[in-house]
Amino acid sequence: MKPPVISCPQCGAPVALQRNPALTVDIIIHPVQEPASVILIQRRHPPLGWALPGGFVDYGESLEQAARREAKEETGLDLTDVRQFRAYSDPARDPRQHTVTVVFSAQGSGRAHAADDARDLQVFPLNALPENMAFDHHRILKDYVRWSLEGILPS
Amino acid sequence: MKPPVISCPQCGAPVALQRNPALTVDIIIHPVQEPASVILIQRRHPPLGWALPGGFVDYGESLEQAARREAKEETGLDLTDVRQFRAYSDPARDPRQHTVTVVFSAQGSGRAHAADDARDLQVFPLNALPENMAFDHHRILKDYVRWSLEGILPS
Repeated sequence: MKPPVISCPQCGAPVALQRNPALTVDIIIHPVQEPASVILIQRRHPPLGWALPGGFVDYGESLEQAARREAKEETGLDLTDVRQFRAYSDPARDPRQHTVTVVFSAQGSGRAHAADDARDLQVFPLNALPENMAFDHHRILKDYVRWSLEGILPS
Repeated sequence: MKPPVISCPQCGAPVALQRNPALTVDIIIHPVQEPASVILIQRRHPPLGWALPGGFVDYGESLEQAARREAKEETGLDLTDVRQFRAYSDPARDPRQHTVTVVFSAQGSGRAHAADDARDLQVFPLNALPENMAFDHHRILKDYVRWSLEGILPS
Protein backbone atom coordinates (compact mmCIF):
# COMPACT_ATOMS: atom_id res chain seq x y z
CA MET A 1 0.00 0.00 0.00
CA LYS A 2 1.64 3.20 -1.18
CA PRO A 3 1.35 6.56 0.57
CA PRO A 4 -0.22 9.47 -1.31
CA VAL A 5 2.06 11.63 -3.48
CA ILE A 6 1.87 15.39 -4.05
CA SER A 7 3.59 17.59 -6.62
CA CYS A 8 6.46 19.89 -5.66
CA PRO A 9 5.02 23.45 -5.73
CA GLN A 10 8.15 24.69 -7.55
CA CYS A 11 9.06 22.04 -10.16
CA GLY A 12 6.11 19.61 -10.13
CA ALA A 13 8.18 16.55 -9.21
CA PRO A 14 6.30 13.89 -7.22
CA VAL A 15 7.00 14.00 -3.48
CA ALA A 16 5.84 11.22 -1.13
CA LEU A 17 3.56 13.15 1.18
CA GLN A 18 3.87 11.16 4.35
CA ARG A 19 5.16 7.89 5.64
CA ASN A 20 2.42 7.68 8.26
CA PRO A 21 -1.31 7.11 7.98
CA ALA A 22 -3.31 10.34 8.15
CA LEU A 23 -4.89 11.03 11.51
CA THR A 24 -8.59 11.81 11.95
CA VAL A 25 -11.15 12.05 14.74
CA ASP A 26 -14.78 10.97 14.72
CA ILE A 27 -17.34 11.89 17.33
CA ILE A 28 -20.28 9.94 18.73
CA ILE A 29 -22.49 12.91 19.67
CA HIS A 30 -25.47 12.31 21.91
CA PRO A 31 -28.03 15.11 21.89
CA VAL A 32 -28.47 16.45 25.44
CA GLN A 33 -31.41 14.55 27.02
CA GLU A 34 -31.15 11.81 24.37
CA PRO A 35 -28.24 9.69 25.65
CA ALA A 36 -29.38 6.61 23.72
CA SER A 37 -29.30 8.42 20.36
CA VAL A 38 -26.51 9.59 18.08
CA ILE A 39 -26.22 12.40 15.55
CA LEU A 40 -25.13 11.23 12.11
CA ILE A 41 -24.39 13.29 9.02
CA GLN A 42 -25.04 12.37 5.41
CA ARG A 43 -21.77 12.86 3.58
CA ARG A 44 -21.55 15.39 0.76
CA HIS A 45 -18.54 13.69 -0.88
CA PRO A 46 -17.69 10.03 -1.58
CA PRO A 47 -17.66 7.66 0.13
CA LEU A 48 -21.35 8.52 0.52
CA GLY A 49 -23.63 7.34 3.30
CA TRP A 50 -24.37 8.21 6.91
CA ALA A 51 -21.32 8.83 9.06
CA LEU A 52 -20.13 10.10 12.40
CA PRO A 53 -19.12 13.76 12.21
CA GLY A 54 -15.33 14.04 12.04
CA GLY A 55 -12.30 14.91 9.97
CA PHE A 56 -8.55 15.38 9.82
CA VAL A 57 -6.56 16.46 12.86
CA ASP A 58 -4.59 19.65 12.16
CA TYR A 59 -0.91 19.91 12.96
CA GLY A 60 -0.51 21.52 16.41
CA GLU A 61 -4.03 20.58 17.54
CA SER A 62 -4.84 17.99 20.20
CA LEU A 63 -7.31 15.21 19.40
CA GLU A 64 -9.87 16.75 21.78
CA GLN A 65 -9.54 20.15 20.07
CA ALA A 66 -9.99 18.51 16.66
CA ALA A 67 -13.11 16.71 17.89
CA ARG A 68 -14.66 19.96 19.16
CA ARG A 69 -13.75 21.84 15.96
CA GLU A 70 -15.05 19.18 13.57
CA ALA A 71 -18.29 18.75 15.55
CA LYS A 72 -18.88 22.50 15.43
CA GLU A 73 -18.05 22.75 11.70
CA GLU A 74 -20.27 19.86 10.60
CA THR A 75 -23.17 20.02 13.06
CA GLY A 76 -23.08 23.48 14.69
CA LEU A 77 -23.04 21.82 18.12
CA ASP A 78 -20.83 22.57 21.10
CA LEU A 79 -19.51 19.51 22.92
CA THR A 80 -19.41 18.77 26.61
CA ASP A 81 -18.31 15.62 28.45
CA VAL A 82 -15.84 14.74 25.66
CA ARG A 83 -14.39 11.27 26.29
CA GLN A 84 -11.92 9.25 24.29
CA PHE A 85 -13.36 5.90 23.19
CA ARG A 86 -11.07 3.99 20.85
CA ALA A 87 -8.73 4.18 17.82
CA TYR A 88 -9.46 2.32 14.57
CA SER A 89 -6.65 1.73 12.10
CA ASP A 90 -7.45 -0.99 9.55
CA PRO A 91 -5.65 0.20 6.37
CA ALA A 92 -8.81 -0.65 4.36
CA ARG A 93 -11.24 1.33 6.54
CA ASP A 94 -11.16 4.37 4.22
CA PRO A 95 -11.14 3.62 0.48
CA ARG A 96 -9.33 6.88 -0.36
CA GLN A 97 -6.18 6.50 1.72
CA HIS A 98 -4.96 4.96 4.96
CA THR A 99 -6.48 6.95 7.80
CA VAL A 100 -6.40 6.17 11.51
CA THR A 101 -9.25 7.60 13.53
CA VAL A 102 -9.55 8.23 17.25
CA VAL A 103 -13.21 8.11 18.23
CA PHE A 104 -14.69 10.27 20.99
CA SER A 105 -18.09 10.36 22.63
CA ALA A 106 -19.67 13.61 23.80
CA GLN A 107 -22.87 15.44 24.53
CA GLY A 108 -23.85 18.02 21.93
CA SER A 109 -25.70 21.19 22.80
CA GLY A 110 -27.04 23.96 20.59
CA ARG A 111 -29.13 23.87 17.44
CA ALA A 112 -27.95 21.06 15.19
CA HIS A 113 -27.70 21.80 11.47
CA ALA A 114 -25.70 20.15 8.71
CA ALA A 115 -22.80 22.23 7.35
CA ASP A 116 -19.38 21.94 5.70
CA ASP A 117 -18.88 18.33 4.49
CA ALA A 118 -22.33 17.33 5.80
CA ARG A 119 -25.28 17.39 3.39
CA ASP A 120 -27.87 16.37 5.95
CA LEU A 121 -28.04 15.58 9.63
CA GLN A 122 -30.30 13.30 11.61
CA VAL A 123 -30.67 11.86 15.09
CA PHE A 124 -30.80 8.06 15.19
CA PRO A 125 -31.53 5.82 18.17
CA LEU A 126 -28.43 3.68 18.81
CA ASN A 127 -30.59 0.56 18.36
CA ALA A 128 -31.98 1.71 14.99
CA LEU A 129 -29.00 2.86 12.94
CA PRO A 130 -29.29 3.40 9.17
CA GLU A 131 -28.03 0.63 6.88
CA ASN A 132 -25.97 2.71 4.48
CA MET A 133 -23.16 3.86 6.73
CA ALA A 134 -19.75 4.94 5.39
CA PHE A 135 -16.32 3.68 6.46
CA ASP A 136 -16.27 1.39 9.53
CA HIS A 137 -18.68 3.64 11.41
CA HIS A 138 -21.33 0.95 11.83
CA ARG A 139 -18.76 -1.30 13.49
CA ILE A 140 -17.53 1.56 15.67
CA LEU A 141 -21.07 2.24 16.91
CA LYS A 142 -21.66 -1.47 17.49
CA ASP A 143 -18.46 -1.61 19.58
CA TYR A 144 -19.53 1.51 21.42
CA VAL A 145 -22.99 0.17 22.28
CA ARG A 146 -21.47 -3.09 23.51
CA TRP A 147 -18.98 -1.19 25.64
CA SER A 148 -21.70 1.10 27.04
CA LEU A 149 -24.02 -1.78 27.91
CA GLU A 150 -21.59 -4.52 28.92
CA GLY A 151 -18.30 -2.73 29.59
CA ILE A 152 -16.56 -4.89 27.00
CA LEU A 153 -14.01 -3.19 24.75
CA PRO A 154 -13.16 -4.62 21.32
CA SER A 155 -9.98 -6.69 21.34
CA MET B 1 2.92 25.57 15.36
CA LYS B 2 4.22 24.84 11.87
CA PRO B 3 4.39 21.37 10.30
CA PRO B 4 7.79 19.99 9.31
CA VAL B 5 9.12 20.78 5.84
CA ILE B 6 11.15 18.53 3.54
CA SER B 7 13.13 19.33 0.40
CA CYS B 8 11.85 18.33 -3.04
CA PRO B 9 14.05 15.40 -4.17
CA GLN B 10 14.32 16.97 -7.66
CA CYS B 11 14.78 20.73 -7.18
CA GLY B 12 15.31 21.17 -3.43
CA ALA B 13 12.32 23.48 -2.93
CA PRO B 14 10.69 23.29 0.52
CA VAL B 15 7.54 21.16 0.60
CA ALA B 16 5.24 21.12 3.65
CA LEU B 17 5.41 17.47 4.63
CA GLN B 18 2.03 16.94 6.22
CA ARG B 19 -0.92 18.79 7.57
CA ASN B 20 -1.51 16.17 10.27
CA PRO B 21 0.45 15.25 13.37
CA ALA B 22 2.67 12.20 12.85
CA LEU B 23 1.28 8.99 14.27
CA THR B 24 3.23 6.74 16.64
CA VAL B 25 2.62 3.79 18.95
CA ASP B 26 4.15 3.10 22.35
CA ILE B 27 3.92 -0.18 24.20
CA ILE B 28 3.69 -0.91 27.91
CA ILE B 29 5.34 -4.36 27.87
CA HIS B 30 5.00 -6.54 30.94
CA PRO B 31 7.50 -9.40 31.07
CA VAL B 32 5.62 -12.71 31.25
CA GLN B 33 5.24 -13.60 34.98
CA GLU B 34 6.01 -10.00 35.99
CA PRO B 35 2.65 -8.26 35.42
CA ALA B 36 3.51 -5.43 37.84
CA SER B 37 6.69 -4.48 35.95
CA VAL B 38 7.36 -2.71 32.67
CA ILE B 39 10.21 -2.87 30.16
CA LEU B 40 11.74 0.51 29.38
CA ILE B 41 14.46 1.40 26.92
CA GLN B 42 17.14 4.03 27.27
CA ARG B 43 16.96 6.16 24.15
CA ARG B 44 19.94 6.34 21.82
CA HIS B 45 18.90 9.69 20.31
CA PRO B 46 17.51 12.92 21.84
CA PRO B 47 15.30 13.42 23.66
CA LEU B 48 17.32 11.14 25.96
CA GLY B 49 15.97 9.27 28.97
CA TRP B 50 14.02 6.12 29.69
CA ALA B 51 11.04 5.54 27.46
CA LEU B 52 8.41 3.05 26.43
CA PRO B 53 9.44 1.12 23.32
CA GLY B 54 7.65 2.54 20.28
CA GLY B 55 7.91 4.46 17.05
CA PHE B 56 6.21 5.73 13.92
CA VAL B 57 3.31 3.85 12.34
CA ASP B 58 4.03 2.96 8.73
CA TYR B 59 1.56 3.74 5.96
CA GLY B 60 -0.58 0.64 5.34
CA GLU B 61 0.07 -0.85 8.78
CA SER B 62 -2.49 -1.12 11.58
CA LEU B 63 -1.68 0.26 15.01
CA GLU B 64 -1.46 -3.27 16.43
CA GLN B 65 0.97 -4.33 13.67
CA ALA B 66 3.10 -1.27 14.37
CA ALA B 67 3.15 -2.08 18.10
CA ARG B 68 4.31 -5.66 17.44
CA ARG B 69 6.95 -4.52 14.94
CA GLU B 70 8.39 -1.75 17.11
CA ALA B 71 8.48 -3.99 20.21
CA LYS B 72 10.37 -6.63 18.25
CA GLU B 73 12.80 -4.11 16.72
CA GLU B 74 13.67 -2.37 19.98
CA THR B 75 13.45 -5.18 22.55
CA GLY B 76 13.54 -8.47 20.61
CA LEU B 77 10.30 -9.52 22.33
CA ASP B 78 7.19 -11.04 20.81
CA LEU B 79 3.91 -9.64 22.11
CA THR B 80 0.80 -11.43 23.26
CA ASP B 81 -2.39 -10.07 24.80
CA VAL B 82 -1.98 -6.75 22.95
CA ARG B 83 -4.59 -4.26 24.19
CA GLN B 84 -5.21 -0.68 23.22
CA PHE B 85 -4.94 1.67 26.20
CA ARG B 86 -5.18 5.34 25.23
CA ALA B 87 -4.09 8.03 22.74
CA TYR B 88 -2.01 11.06 23.81
CA SER B 89 -1.90 14.11 21.58
CA ASP B 90 -0.63 17.24 23.41
CA PRO B 91 1.26 19.16 20.67
CA ALA B 92 4.11 19.76 23.17
CA ARG B 93 4.56 16.11 24.18
CA ASP B 94 7.45 15.57 21.72
CA PRO B 95 9.95 18.47 21.44
CA ARG B 96 10.88 17.54 17.85
CA GLN B 97 7.50 17.72 16.15
CA HIS B 98 3.82 17.15 16.86
CA THR B 99 3.29 13.42 17.29
CA VAL B 100 0.17 11.64 18.48
CA THR B 101 0.75 8.27 20.10
CA VAL B 102 -1.62 5.39 20.69
CA VAL B 103 -0.44 3.40 23.69
CA PHE B 104 -0.85 -0.37 23.98
CA SER B 105 -0.23 -2.80 26.80
CA ALA B 106 1.01 -6.33 26.15
CA GLN B 107 2.90 -9.27 27.53
CA GLY B 108 6.39 -9.73 26.11
CA SER B 109 7.97 -13.12 25.66
CA GLY B 110 11.44 -14.10 24.47
CA ARG B 111 14.88 -12.87 25.49
CA ALA B 112 14.82 -9.09 25.88
CA HIS B 113 17.76 -7.14 24.48
CA ALA B 114 18.11 -3.49 23.49
CA ALA B 115 18.39 -2.88 19.73
CA ASP B 116 17.68 -0.29 17.03
CA ASP B 117 16.90 3.08 18.69
CA ALA B 118 17.37 1.55 22.17
CA ARG B 119 20.78 1.89 23.86
CA ASP B 120 19.85 -0.08 26.95
CA LEU B 121 16.86 -1.94 28.32
CA GLN B 122 15.71 -2.59 31.85
CA VAL B 123 12.73 -3.98 33.74
CA PHE B 124 11.22 -1.54 36.26
CA PRO B 125 8.49 -2.24 38.82
CA LEU B 126 5.52 0.00 37.99
CA ASN B 127 5.78 1.52 41.48
CA ALA B 128 9.49 2.34 41.12
CA LEU B 129 9.90 4.04 37.74
CA PRO B 130 13.07 5.96 36.86
CA GLU B 131 13.01 9.74 37.22
CA ASN B 132 14.53 10.71 33.88
CA MET B 133 11.80 9.60 31.49
CA ALA B 134 11.40 11.07 27.98
CA PHE B 135 8.27 12.59 26.44
CA ASP B 136 5.06 12.19 28.50
CA HIS B 137 5.83 8.55 29.24
CA HIS B 138 5.88 9.04 33.00
CA ARG B 139 2.37 10.50 32.84
CA ILE B 140 1.22 7.69 30.55
CA LEU B 141 2.44 5.06 33.02
CA LYS B 142 0.85 6.93 35.93
CA ASP B 143 -2.47 6.98 34.05
CA TYR B 144 -2.05 3.29 33.24
CA VAL B 145 -1.37 2.27 36.85
CA ARG B 146 -4.39 4.28 38.02
CA TRP B 147 -6.57 2.65 35.39
CA SER B 148 -5.25 -0.84 36.27
CA LEU B 149 -5.81 -0.38 40.00
CA GLU B 150 -8.95 1.76 40.12
CA GLY B 151 -10.51 1.46 36.67
CA ILE B 152 -10.33 5.23 36.21
CA LEU B 153 -9.35 6.51 32.78
CA PRO B 154 -7.81 9.96 32.34
CA SER B 155 -10.33 12.60 31.29
